[in-house]
Amino acid sequence: MHPIAERGFTQSEFERRTEKAQAIMARLGLGALLLTTEPEVRYFTGFDTIFWLSPTRPWFVVIPAKGAPIAVIPEIGAPSMSLTWISDVRTWLAPQPEDDGISLLANTLREVMPQGGVLGVPMGHETHVRMPAADFMALQAKLDGISLADGTDVVRSLRMVKSEAEIAKIARICSIASSAFEDLPTYIKTGDTERQAFAKFKIDLLQKGADDVPYLVGSSGPGGFEDVINRPSDRIIADGDMLLLDTGALYDGYSCDFDRNYAFGHATDAAKSAYDLAWRATEAGLQAARPGITTTELWAAMAKVLEDGGCGGHQIGRMGHGLGMQVTEWPSNMPGDNTLIEAGMVLTLEPGLAFGDGKMMLHEENIVIREDGAELLTRRAPPALPIIT
Amino acid sequence: MHPIAERGFTQSEFERRTEKAQAIMARLGLGALLLTTEPEVRYFTGFDTIFWLSPTRPWFVVIPAKGAPIAVIPEIGAPSMSLTWISDVRTWLAPQPEDDGISLLANTLREVMPQGGVLGVPMGHETHVRMPAADFMALQAKLDGISLADGTDVVRSLRMVKSEAEIAKIARICSIASSAFEDLPTYIKTGDTERQAFAKFKIDLLQKGADDVPYLVGSSGPGGFEDVINRPSDRIIADGDMLLLDTGALYDGYSCDFDRNYAFGHATDAAKSAYDLAWRATEAGLQAARPGITTTELWAAMAKVLEDGGCGGHQIGRMGHGLGMQVTEWPSNMPGDNTLIEAGMVLTLEPGLAFGDGKMMLHEENIVIREDGAELLTRRAPPALPIIT
Repeated sequence: MHPIAERGFTQSEFERRTEKAQAIMARLGLGALLLTTEPEVRYFTGFDTIFWLSPTRPWFVVIPAKGAPIAVIPEIGAPSMSLTWISDVRTWLAPQPEDDGISLLANTLREVMPQGGVLGVPMGHETHVRMPAADFMALQAKLDGISLADGTDVVRSLRMVKSEAEIAKIARICSIASSAFEDLPTYIKTGDTERQAFAKFKIDLLQKGADDVPYLVGSSGPGGFEDVINRPSDRIIADGDMLLLDTGALYDGYSCDFDRNYAFGHATDAAKSAYDLAWRATEAGLQAARPGITTTELWAAMAKVLEDGGCGGHQIGRMGHGLGMQVTEWPSNMPGDNTLIEAGMVLTLEPGLAFGDGKMMLHEENIVIREDGAELLTRRAPPALPIIT
Repeated sequence: MHPIAERGFTQSEFERRTEKAQAIMARLGLGALLLTTEPEVRYFTGFDTIFWLSPTRPWFVVIPAKGAPIAVIPEIGAPSMSLTWISDVRTWLAPQPEDDGISLLANTLREVMPQGGVLGVPMGHETHVRMPAADFMALQAKLDGISLADGTDVVRSLRMVKSEAEIAKIARICSIASSAFEDLPTYIKTGDTERQAFAKFKIDLLQKGADDVPYLVGSSGPGGFEDVINRPSDRIIADGDMLLLDTGALYDGYSCDFDRNYAFGHATDAAKSAYDLAWRATEAGLQAARPGITTTELWAAMAKVLEDGGCGGHQIGRMGHGLGMQVTEWPSNMPGDNTLIEAGMVLTLEPGLAFGDGKMMLHEENIVIREDGAELLTRRAPPALPIIT
């Protein structure tokens, strides 16, 4: 069975997150932090909704220098937000394009911040400001006396290191998806279209206990495939094909992100060798990953195996990344990233290579960093390319 | 069976979209248009991927004043983008936080735009700039001599009016979801948790031919419910409960967005009356919707029925909206919106009301505007509250 993971978080976990954010904010000289995206709002409030798919209404959370976060949200979100630990919930009847919460937000910020204070807004890598750009400019105009600074480091450094409650949720979805991948040869056959195969896999994930399967990409092709971020097509899977499926399924708002490769009927020696090389590169990553090394060193451990195997790079730009509320998070295992790996980080190991005539091979596992090294959250891919007969 | 809808679009449809955009750009004095979000990029290129769920890499499309769009994207997207009608694909090996495509994008814009030109960027209601805010500022600094202006109207006016090919996709997913709602009483029972009920419905949608079910919200509760944007909980559905499910399922990248209400065993008179009132308000919307009236007049037609029935508003702020590539799009059926309704627009009609002790009743249908009025894309909700026994 899949490891038990409680739903939700204790209030003390949210308090801890908030206090840690406030400690970093104090260090950076930020009088408050403004958050506008789904994972950030959920991280500090616990409010989990897919209503974010609608681009119509902005949602804001303000982390003051002291005390609990303040939600500044559309009225439609008030009943759900009131079930969280947040007690200061300020609403307006959105949509209201001429002033879609901007005055309410500006008043809130001026109330919790000193004149001349600095407002942190995540503006760096992997962030965006999820509100109309014109409204963001209007907000700045209303904040006279308050300046803006990049608040990326606050959320980045907090979210990169997971609590045991977060790890338990990721472990559970990794276990569910591992089972779905292990059972896949019993229900995906030659003659299925890619679309049918993807649908069967998605349904199996849901039946095994995934809450949702927002991310599922892959590819199939004779002897291999050339792309790894496709939606499925009506291409019929045939004898001699390779199939890649890569899923970000969810349990209680936390994601796995890993893939598996299969061959149908038989496989070329080139594909088998490429699989073996990617598997051994992953193994090197598993051995290397531990607190105290950097993401760049972790990348180098995997890259060395690929290079020794005669392969150059691929076109993905990195070999894994952080994982948690989003299917990809900070940091990146790549040259130049140089993030110091700490216990509690959840990472993917994702070595890939090009082989044969422009084909790609991509492996991926999910790990949590413990004091003594990597703990696998996924059940390890088989050491030899699985052939479905 | 569900109406036939071809996958993808002809190249001439993309050419038409681009030419229409360029005509509006010329009118607004825009020398080019910069697009950064998934639906905008897909609308002009046909590139459909859920890779956008990863926040790591920005993607850009530039619509020049003349000629085909230019894709400025991470190298990982090149194989898929090269399968679209776009031939000018410029890539960089992302992620590269110190210059994540910004120089490449700036060079591209300076190449296609005159010195002193105006670059359109969607900055208005329902848009956001999907790249780090710091990178957006760095881009502006590299564009010296080029100024920015709001380009929302270009994409808004184009995307609000659907082609027959787009309508066919929405019609198909509306038909699939109508079937799933009609069959729901055969597979959702008292004793199911909300989570189990949602999973069964999602699996049925996939089995009936939905490509994906990114949006599914709802609620259950004795005699009604108080919230309409929840994810499911472990609450067990019991005799006397009401259940709402509201789904945005996808077919070939186009969404439905409608809901259905059910009672289990029996229903209160208050719930039956509220259902009847919302049903009649929807009916008034169906009668009123036609080219030449405004979204505000359409709202008023539904609001009058609710007011005559003794009900005030609800907390949603509008009674329906545009529908297409996203589960909600421009325009909004609400006071102050005043969008002129045209043939080819796909809209939701979504009257809601509060009743009893803080309960909510929300109905929703999807329509396409034809020369002679509204054509239902959903199969109409039954006129009386369905009771599952």
